[in-house]
Amino acid sequence: MKSTKAVGASCWAIAGGRIPVDSAGPEPQRTSHDRLCFLNAGDAEAQVEITIFYADREPVGPYRLRVAARRVRQVRLNDLIDPGPIPLGTDYGCVVNSDVPVLVEFARLDTTQPAGAQLGFPAHTG
Amino acid sequence: MKSTKAVGASCWAIAGGRIPVDSAGPEPQRTSHDRLCFLNAGDAEAQVEITIFYADREPVGPYRLRVAARRVRQVRLNDLIDPGPIPLGTDYGCVVNSDVPVLVEFARLDTTQPAGAQLGFPAHTG
Amino acid sequence: MKSTKAVGASCWAIAGGRIPVDSAGPEPQRTSHDRLCFLNAGDAEAQVEITIFYADREPVGPYRLRVAARRVRQVRLNDLIDPGPIPLGTDYGCVVNSDVPVLVEFARLDTTQPAGAQLGFPAHTG
Amino acid sequence: MKSTKAVGASCWAIAGGRIPVDSAGPEPQRTSHDRLCFLNAGDAEAQVEITIFYADREPVGPYRLRVAARRVRQVRLNDLIDPGPIPLGTDYGCVVNSDVPVLVEFARLDTTQPAGAQLGFPAHTG
Repeated sequence: MKSTKAVGASCWAIAGGRIPVDSAGPEPQRTSHDRLCFLNAGDAEAQVEITIFYADREPVGPYRLRVAARRVRQVRLNDLIDPGPIPLGTDYGCVVNSDVPVLVEFARLDTTQPAGAQLGFPAHTG
Repeated sequence: MKSTKAVGASCWAIAGGRIPVDSAGPEPQRTSHDRLCFLNAGDAEAQVEITIFYADREPVGPYRLRVAARRVRQVRLNDLIDPGPIPLGTDYGCVVNSDVPVLVEFARLDTTQPAGAQLGFPAHTG
Repeated sequence: MKSTKAVGASCWAIAGGRIPVDSAGPEPQRTSHDRLCFLNAGDAEAQVEITIFYADREPVGPYRLRVAARRVRQVRLNDLIDPGPIPLGTDYGCVVNSDVPVLVEFARLDTTQPAGAQLGFPAHTG
Repeated sequence: MKSTKAVGASCWAIAGGRIPVDSAGPEPQRTSHDRLCFLNAGDAEAQVEITIFYADREPVGPYRLRVAARRVRQVRLNDLIDPGPIPLGTDYGCVVNSDVPVLVEFARLDTTQPAGAQLGFPAHTG
């Protein structure tokens, strides 16, 4: 099967990031994290650039990654390292730019308490 | 009573699917699942096609279903079987196409922990 | 202070309603419920009509209510009675029409488990 | 690095505010609260005005705050004091106006129960 029609947009943003500091339960499944979920439904690989904004210093980026054609990719913000990790427990936002349309959702797993809490919603289209 | 005005759109997408592997509590109410919630507020039956996108293989679909005129329908992604089930614990996204406007929401019940967690939000209009 | 500029839209919809059957904790604060949250930021009272859609029968409505100018109003779907209550544990959707622009959010408190779970998001603008 | 392109809009609104009365766990991290999350991705400081709407009295505001250029800012509604605090356990909505485009998300931490519950979603663009 070939699905070739792109969906989404080329610019997305999130305002309320904050990677929880504490975790309970087995790693890595229950490790607290923020993540971005990408869907590239089109036939061209997406070149994605993420810029991270903070409360008290200049933005950092771009973080570069690729999302293959006709694929999803979930990326934990905790795992971004180049040009620098995002500190835990710190307010941040992000702007995501892609050279082809993609869909971007934001999600959080917070296991500060063992029961855990989840967030998820589509990012704002730029 | 007759309500005949369609709402929504003909293309919707979700990026961050992942059916939780574990469940706690009575089946099927507390079985962990992802689901799509359809509202067809119009007067024509909707022919819906769902395509599932993965991280590491070609998309699978279409999964076909119908939503009757002036009806809702909630479908657990766990229950889609033709042309193939969605594996648990696996990142996926989906694109939903309908021949008439419908509203599509995404929801998750995650009872990996007994307290359970819920997600829900409108899909992105493609 | 007078705030007179309306925000929102005149048609909103929700696809994934389902009032949880069970509750734990003190009533009415911890009673499981679905609710609609209205903001009428404008200077004219809003006449609102809600139609409820089901999986297996014709839609029911309109349920009529008013949201005063420059006011919010939160309405538990559990409490709608005329022209008929919404059964618990039953899939439903709704379409909300207003004669002036309002903002509509959907929210759920599910205390099936004592820890409770919450949902909340803006409805889809029809 | 300089990121200079603004994202978002100049008017946002929330309908379903209600700051939880009770909290469990260490302050201030686990104190129940509603908050607004701002991202100002542009090169000009944002002058923001928030108006709070209630169920049974006239709106209160504006609450004024600034979001620096290329910065995020998270503001707990609990902490707004001028021209008056928002009472706990009280339904409210808000309209946010900014002189330059910003992104606004709404979030809630509810630790009425120790496990805690979280909400988060982009506000509605007015």
